[in-house]
Amino acid sequence: MSETYKLHISKRFNRDLVALVNQLLQMGGLVEQQIKLATDALLKADTSLAQQAKVLETKVDEYDVMMGESCAHMLVLRQPAASDLRMTLAINNCVSDLERIGDEANKIATMAITLAESEDESPDGYVEVRHISQQVMSMLHDVLHAFSRQDVSLALAVKSRDEQVDMEYRSAMRTLITFMMEEPRNIGRVLNVIWVLRALERIGDHVCNIAEQIVYMVQGSDIRHASKKEIESLFNTLTEPTDKPNHE
Amino acid sequence: MSETYKLHISKRFNRDLVALVNQLLQMGGLVEQQIKLATDALLKADTSLAQQAKVLETKVDEYDVMMGESCAHMLVLRQPAASDLRMTLAINNCVSDLERIGDEANKIATMAITLAESEDESPDGYVEVRHISQQVMSMLHDVLHAFSRQDVSLALAVKSRDEQVDMEYRSAMRTLITFMMEEPRNIGRVLNVIWVLRALERIGDHVCNIAEQIVYMVQGSDIRHASKKEIESLFNTLTEPTDKPNHE
Repeated sequence: MSETYKLHISKRFNRDLVALVNQLLQMGGLVEQQIKLATDALLKADTSLAQQAKVLETKVDEYDVMMGESCAHMLVLRQPAASDLRMTLAINNCVSDLERIGDEANKIATMAITLAESEDESPDGYVEVRHISQQVMSMLHDVLHAFSRQDVSLALAVKSRDEQVDMEYRSAMRTLITFMMEEPRNIGRVLNVIWVLRALERIGDHVCNIAEQIVYMVQGSDIRHASKKEIESLFNTLTEPTDKPNHE
Repeated sequence: MSETYKLHISKRFNRDLVALVNQLLQMGGLVEQQIKLATDALLKADTSLAQQAKVLETKVDEYDVMMGESCAHMLVLRQPAASDLRMTLAINNCVSDLERIGDEANKIATMAITLAESEDESPDGYVEVRHISQQVMSMLHDVLHAFSRQDVSLALAVKSRDEQVDMEYRSAMRTLITFMMEEPRNIGRVLNVIWVLRALERIGDHVCNIAEQIVYMVQGSDIRHASKKEIESLFNTLTEPTDKPNHE
């Protein structure tokens, strides 16, 4: 293979990879909108916002199929190695997490419609929904930013914020159980709010998966089942100013 | 490249692929055990079974990491094309679904411990847990069988059984909401049973994902977002005796 030919392939490969990353970020943007519309629909009892969220779901699914094909194409036609392979695989996995976030947002939209149509308009748990939804939306936004910049420190910082979300989720659950005990006839309604909180908590988990993929893509290390301590030590290596040479 | 060399590579590739499939089936077997132990722990209020389920979780996570690496290796070193590539990617995706099924089984084991340790021993919802867990365990068993035989008809048949699971899940939810309304002081306990049912329902969803991967692997078609009608028509093409030529 001549050098010029190799260069040509590598240029073309990079162009394709950049296109894939851009599509991933576009898909991520749609998913962000989906969560925003679905939770606004719930908090404002506005079913038209929920319908808009559901329209986006179709688009997100289209991205999912299209990008699945693009990644397979990349693997077959360009046969990437080392860091390019990791990037292609990471994109493939992140697409699947974004699609699952979209599914959760879609569930929230469905609950928003059910809740808006119910006669009783008790806003039990809405404060918690607003709070947790803002946190996971900001986490998603930041993790997409970390992906575009291939920023491992930011990815790990986002992942660490999930603990806070889990804590607030558990606290919200306790509050909602109390609401149910105090007003048993509201149980059905409060349970729908619980599903929403659970969907938000799962969105947080998927954001963490994306963060882990960024670490895998940039550093080649699989931290999915690493302990908190191992992750902290990785984080410190990245953030602390040090004269010691970096090891990889 | 000489023909002998090509043949050598292809033999080696097949051997590696067979090894990967065997590992996937072993991992699947562990996950099956995990669900069985976790639900038995719950139904028999036996925390030692729940601990055994939790030990398996570590093994399942080890398979997850090991097989993730093996799939990446296959892609880099063997650079598979067409159906071999689809198989490698399908294995990669199925591993991630098995791992998530393991996570759900682990949640059930945690709930089993909480429920066994609570003072009140009301078995509200246990009939439903037994019933739905048997269904999803049998679906998982069959989908692994379908994978090993590359049997698209069986995979689609398994997928279609998820609708029944979803129906029974919704019916169980209605029953449990009634229990909570009738006995508000049991709400916390019943909610734990609801989490178990939800985990089982999600296991059903992951089994469906695996079924979809089998279709993708064997036929190359992506049915993840296909309508029920499209899937039925694919199923009929596969199962109906016909004189018409098969299209792919």
